[in-house]
Amino acid sequence: MTATMPAGVTAARDLVGPAIATLVDRLSPEVRIVAAYHLGLADADGRPLGPGQGGSGKALRPALALLSARAAGVAPERGVAPAVAVELVHNFSLLHDDIMDADTERRHRPTAWTVFGIGAAILAGDALLALAQDALLEDLAPQSPWAVRCLSAAVQRLIAGQAADLAFERRDDVTVAECLEMAGGKTAALMACACSIGVIHVGGPAELAMGLAAFGSHIGLAFQLTDDLLGIWGAPEVTGKPVHSDLRARKKSLPVVAALATGSEPGRELGELMADHRSPSEQDLLRAARLIEEAGGRQWAESEADTHMSLAVRCLAETDMPDDVRAEFTAIANFITSRQC
Amino acid sequence: MTATMPAGVTAARDLVGPAIATLVDRLSPEVRIVAAYHLGLADADGRPLGPGQGGSGKALRPALALLSARAAGVAPERGVAPAVAVELVHNFSLLHDDIMDADTERRHRPTAWTVFGIGAAILAGDALLALAQDALLEDLAPQSPWAVRCLSAAVQRLIAGQAADLAFERRDDVTVAECLEMAGGKTAALMACACSIGVIHVGGPAELAMGLAAFGSHIGLAFQLTDDLLGIWGAPEVTGKPVHSDLRARKKSLPVVAALATGSEPGRELGELMADHRSPSEQDLLRAARLIEEAGGRQWAESEADTHMSLAVRCLAETDMPDDVRAEFTAIANFITSRQC
Repeated sequence: MTATMPAGVTAARDLVGPAIATLVDRLSPEVRIVAAYHLGLADADGRPLGPGQGGSGKALRPALALLSARAAGVAPERGVAPAVAVELVHNFSLLHDDIMDADTERRHRPTAWTVFGIGAAILAGDALLALAQDALLEDLAPQSPWAVRCLSAAVQRLIAGQAADLAFERRDDVTVAECLEMAGGKTAALMACACSIGVIHVGGPAELAMGLAAFGSHIGLAFQLTDDLLGIWGAPEVTGKPVHSDLRARKKSLPVVAALATGSEPGRELGELMADHRSPSEQDLLRAARLIEEAGGRQWAESEADTHMSLAVRCLAETDMPDDVRAEFTAIANFITSRQC
Repeated sequence: MTATMPAGVTAARDLVGPAIATLVDRLSPEVRIVAAYHLGLADADGRPLGPGQGGSGKALRPALALLSARAAGVAPERGVAPAVAVELVHNFSLLHDDIMDADTERRHRPTAWTVFGIGAAILAGDALLALAQDALLEDLAPQSPWAVRCLSAAVQRLIAGQAADLAFERRDDVTVAECLEMAGGKTAALMACACSIGVIHVGGPAELAMGLAAFGSHIGLAFQLTDDLLGIWGAPEVTGKPVHSDLRARKKSLPVVAALATGSEPGRELGELMADHRSPSEQDLLRAARLIEEAGGRQWAESEADTHMSLAVRCLAETDMPDDVRAEFTAIANFITSRQC
């Protein structure tokens, strides 16, 4: 199944990209070079890169935030500040997660910490987190403090999710429920925030914000399930990440935990394989992927992603908003689960 | 010279400590245990520690923030939210700095990253930064967004200062001006914020906020100069840090840079010693400390600290505030330069 990037996502990049570049320009030289590199705005020597050259992100979250403002009946421009804030928070978390997950590649480029060192990458992440709230508060409206609190709550859930994810690597008794809770924090919280923060920032109706937050939470879980599937079975030349990277890091991703929880023979074998703390061979990783599939972990994750997609679509249907906005939200949701990167 | 902790600092700890503990309780279990350990609220297994047991910090910044509210003529309780925010930001930066500086000891205890790992310590720092803005925005007043922006600006300067500090370790041509600029970011910016944020948060006069920010900036520089002196000549059993830790890490601290900049014979010898990238022996470190002193770096730093103290006192004298508040600000300023830890 091939997925086409929805037009709204490309448009979001055009609207939000320059605003982010302007904010990043304000950072001190030592911090700016790292942030600009990570965001795909510049190469490792600080030379500017043209659009697309830096393999910048998919801009899904900003697209959702802009749509969120439009759902409240205002022009997408009014949603730029929240869209920028959400994208900066996303990138703060990527910068820090890459360090703690020891990931060496992202968006087909070496990760920032491998290029500039751990200290510089920590600071660049910190700076993007602080910039995110500036972005919101500088577009000062009576509701801005609420938008900042909404973002801050998402940041705390994101941190909690990532902390649980790290802790899971050292545990072999993680339940599917715990793993879904972790994904709810690590991924769904910021998606829910992206979908509702535009409404909050422009002072739109609370029911609209809540309906869209629920929609965002479901597509966030569908996104994470898809991400986990791609982390095991995705083609590295498309995902931009090394093959089997999640398995190599012994990530307790959702398909893995579901497979382990079946109590089936392949699940038991998978557990033994993952408990072996020697560095896994390529053959071990292929075998792990096969065992997850045989235990039903792959099918479970695909079906769970479908369920969350259906729930997301129902949330949209039950929430009052302009039809064209609903259609664009739906297009992004479909893209999220059918994407291959 | 022995320094007695001003009464306001102890009182600040009593007022702000419980508020911080309540906020930390909200964090997810994996993040909370690290944050509570770092803040001296709990041991490494999460068991609560009594006051003083955890070697918690000096609470200088919260004391300044509470005084700042009082300077604007309101009860110190109104300053609790900004005091909490400033202290959380300070601890966010300590958690992250200890990782990048590879510091293994703080406040007479192993640093958080050595106990819980780098990933967990990064996340705990992130969580405290996000909590800091929550603390301010939850005490919602019409001026809260301005207080958040004031804090955020300080966070960005703090990050810029720390990034410059890291970059200086790889350079041998750092000027005294660059080093003062770095200290202005790393230390003085948050002190300036602490001294003015109480006024801003309660909607006090702009001149008062500005006068106190200038005062805070000067005592911040005096603080950093004193810190650098203690980092070379302080007694480890008092400072809680290993002896000569700054020299061992080849930190371009202010006395070092001043000594190198003299162009004197001891300065030249010091430069050679610091350019040698083998791990320094205890004797090398003692020799480095002696060369800094012979080149005049110690005297320069002491005299520079005195200058900033005089400027700080002048800022206080020129700014309108209740006499008892001015006296307490002066007591903290005096403590800062005469402290031994």
